[in-house]
Amino acid sequence: MQEIEKIIDYEFKNKKLLEIALTHSSFSTQNSNERFEFIGDLILNFIVGISIFKKFPDKDEGFYTNLKSGYVNQHYLNSLGEKLEIAKYIKYKGTKPIDLSDFVESIIGAIYLDGGLKKTERFVKKFILSNKIEPLIDYKGELITISRKLSGKLPLYEIIDEKGPAHKKNYKVIVKIEGIASKGEGEGKSKKEAEIKAAKDILTKILD
Amino acid sequence: MQEIEKIIDYEFKNKKLLEIALTHSSFSTQNSNERFEFIGDLILNFIVGISIFKKFPDKDEGFYTNLKSGYVNQHYLNSLGEKLEIAKYIKYKGTKPIDLSDFVESIIGAIYLDGGLKKTERFVKKFILSNKIEPLIDYKGELITISRKLSGKLPLYEIIDEKGPAHKKNYKVIVKIEGIASKGEGEGKSKKEAEIKAAKDILTKILD
Repeated sequence: MQEIEKIIDYEFKNKKLLEIALTHSSFSTQNSNERFEFIGDLILNFIVGISIFKKFPDKDEGFYTNLKSGYVNQHYLNSLGEKLEIAKYIKYKGTKPIDLSDFVESIIGAIYLDGGLKKTERFVKKFILSNKIEPLIDYKGELITISRKLSGKLPLYEIIDEKGPAHKKNYKVIVKIEGIASKGEGEGKSKKEAEIKAAKDILTKILD
Repeated sequence: MQEIEKIIDYEFKNKKLLEIALTHSSFSTQNSNERFEFIGDLILNFIVGISIFKKFPDKDEGFYTNLKSGYVNQHYLNSLGEKLEIAKYIKYKGTKPIDLSDFVESIIGAIYLDGGLKKTERFVKKFILSNKIEPLIDYKGELITISRKLSGKLPLYEIIDEKGPAHKKNYKVIVKIEGIASKGEGEGKSKKEAEIKAAKDILTKILD
């Protein structure tokens, strides 16, 4: 317990809260992290959103939404959980690999319940907002998650145009999700860049 | 301005913030309500979620998610906007009817920027959390919104079973969204009840 408190740089007054935040539902359905995950997610979105809003007063809501999703998405939070090695401290009975992003959220919820908003802001600023996010990076990962939920399948990327000489290519890509009417379009100097932009485009259409 | 401040029971120190919160992007793209709507939505979700969590300490995250969506969904917030008659105060150049839920959110964002979290909580408790929500009520409306986004069409309900004598019927309903693999199932004493439960079921599968 003391070890993980050192890692997350927060000492709990009520250790029971930290314990619950680190308990997977396979270990205890009654006192698992899921309730804390619910509030942790809300608090995280609130803190990240307000920080971005204040830091970039001249940007629009599309920019805010994109940058926020760079900081709160499952993939990014899961990497943070790996970096902090929180898996070592989680009570878990099961075989499937667990999603550490859920536990990052439940820890945030527990810090809020134990120490209030100011302390939670401190944690979020230190561990989550401290990294420079290139918001584009995670769109493809985010789209995989959403596509699996909606269609049970992976998103389909297709190059629809390829121009220019070898050293100065320009790609156009579209992305579709089976059964979904909206599609995403993106253009870029590499296939990857065009795909990321296409993923961003369809995500905006589906989620906004 | 004074009139709307009376209605929402909050007096702005900085009237400019209220003005922006009531300006549709068709009237001014630069100073429209959309940025405030972004933070208002986050603050609203945070306040409602935490209130529910504290009020029902023995419930699970599924209950929290459902009840929260009863309070923050577009349909409910739009009705509140109509009840408060905020349309009268909105600067708008256009022909389509506007969605008042966006303005309820931007007003919440403006109160937060002007008065901080405590004053915003006061507003949310007085106007949003004060109504007893039967979380089931809004599932069908919520599903219409989501189905339109995903498939461009309405959800399809189908009665798959009908049992019992006339005064004691039991209905089974399924609901589908075109192109979406998940479907919802519900059972109830009336078609409506079964449909609401089916809508709830598919929403959980799609959104959780």
